[in-house]
Amino acid sequence: MKEIAIIGGGVAGMTAAVYALRANAKVTMFEQYGLGGLVATIDKIENFPSYQSVEGWKLAQDLAKQAKDLGLNVLRKKVVSLTRCEGGFAVDTGAEKYIFPAVVVATGTSHNKLGFENDYVGRGVSYCATCDGNFYKNRPVLVAGDGGVAVSEALYLADVCSHVYVAVSGGAFTAEAKAVSDLLSRDNVSALYNTRVTGIVGDGEVRGAQIYCGKALGTLDVDGIFVATGSKPVTDFIEIDGVLQKNGYLTVDARCQTSVKGLFAAGDVTDGTLKQIVTACSDGAKAGSFAAAYSATVDRN
Amino acid sequence: MKEIAIIGGGVAGMTAAVYALRANAKVTMFEQYGLGGLVATIDKIENFPSYQSVEGWKLAQDLAKQAKDLGLNVLRKKVVSLTRCEGGFAVDTGAEKYIFPAVVVATGTSHNKLGFENDYVGRGVSYCATCDGNFYKNRPVLVAGDGGVAVSEALYLADVCSHVYVAVSGGAFTAEAKAVSDLLSRDNVSALYNTRVTGIVGDGEVRGAQIYCGKALGTLDVDGIFVATGSKPVTDFIEIDGVLQKNGYLTVDARCQTSVKGLFAAGDVTDGTLKQIVTACSDGAKAGSFAAAYSATVDRN
Repeated sequence: MKEIAIIGGGVAGMTAAVYALRANAKVTMFEQYGLGGLVATIDKIENFPSYQSVEGWKLAQDLAKQAKDLGLNVLRKKVVSLTRCEGGFAVDTGAEKYIFPAVVVATGTSHNKLGFENDYVGRGVSYCATCDGNFYKNRPVLVAGDGGVAVSEALYLADVCSHVYVAVSGGAFTAEAKAVSDLLSRDNVSALYNTRVTGIVGDGEVRGAQIYCGKALGTLDVDGIFVATGSKPVTDFIEIDGVLQKNGYLTVDARCQTSVKGLFAAGDVTDGTLKQIVTACSDGAKAGSFAAAYSATVDRN
Repeated sequence: MKEIAIIGGGVAGMTAAVYALRANAKVTMFEQYGLGGLVATIDKIENFPSYQSVEGWKLAQDLAKQAKDLGLNVLRKKVVSLTRCEGGFAVDTGAEKYIFPAVVVATGTSHNKLGFENDYVGRGVSYCATCDGNFYKNRPVLVAGDGGVAVSEALYLADVCSHVYVAVSGGAFTAEAKAVSDLLSRDNVSALYNTRVTGIVGDGEVRGAQIYCGKALGTLDVDGIFVATGSKPVTDFIEIDGVLQKNGYLTVDARCQTSVKGLFAAGDVTDGTLKQIVTACSDGAKAGSFAAAYSATVDRN
């Protein structure tokens, strides 16, 4: 019987589910939060094929409906370990252990931290402009980061906040040129190059950010600090030798299979060359299809 | 200056355009027909992420609008040859020759033929159920083929025609299990396994199909024959050594680049492991992004 587990309910995992279910596999998805992953937190998506513009939660919700209508079984549980075992792979949620002949890992990435912000998370420090931007309406904020996520966060905030500083650690943004020029065309946006955020000024709530720019140390009066300094793959629960790269990402082949037969991966958690919604979905289609096909070949006792 | 050519206006080419244009590249697309490619001819799509169901022409049209709004330049011309030259690649349309530092080939595939049907094409023989199915309303038809396209063609025709025979050359369909079971659940569909179509019975219009099944030769009374026996890549215009496989497909790396720097490929024309709309779009996103980036590094005289 075809049966697979998918760990992670972002767009990669959900597309894997759609493809595996359409191939008549039974699919169990492990996701501790709501379905949608990082995409559900994106304000506006303009580069997903065929959508002129779509909100992230809408894309995620439609994809979730597509998978659920095909019979997806979702377990709202965090996976604490994934190991090899007789019959395939053991997915352990702490309370229970499940065995599957094939598994798709689609856990994505988690945000990098500045390192000193823990006391201020939810008190002026945020990792999601769409979620928290409105708390800073008509107030000045700072975005730390230089990639695509930082730029899209800053663009969102520019519509909401009085002023948006962007602390870019190097001499230029690393994001898509069009998004950068959109951002820099805004009147209320200042890009600060070669600038690092080194501390928080506050009294329980954020009142400012300490920045270091070249040889000068300064303070910016901002009420919010949005951290968008990259991310790391969520793979620390994987206890299988040889599948993780040194940086924690999963290496996959053209079928999205890792070096271990039956273990597949899709989306941001892989070592893909371009991390986009459509590439994550494509990975998911491959991982779901080939995991379903592989599971049918495994003799289960 | 960033500048690329895209040859082929299906979903892979159009997604490549969206990504290259958003990266501020100038993009020229060569497409002899309307934009949309094979997808525009698909009746109903249910496995593209986030769409419960969408008509192919609609998906194609929305993607074309997305690319055109970003500034895509489309030349309605057939490319007769692609060669290497000083400054990159020469795209020759017969009347004119254009030079680009980077090129994305997204020409897809063309239908295989039965071999004896040429006189009857448009007189009972078709390669596209969505295009021609309605001509056979309440009349019996035959579909030749066993893959996903054959099954989706047959499903479409089952809603339109009085009866649909499907001549499957081997002992089983090679299509997705769910699509096959959908098809076989229809009252007016007969799957004929180990069956080849060997000739046409007709008087200028198709009146029947000769079939060979095991040792028996027979005739089916059908008014239409839909050929869905696979396809071959459209790459005969490529005059560059070493990029084509023996079967004509283009081998690409994880960035969708061929073995020749600056020459990229996306979609059905590549040696991809899974040929789906979403995988073609993902290829396009990679090819468009990396081709745009590559073109910026080329010194043009």
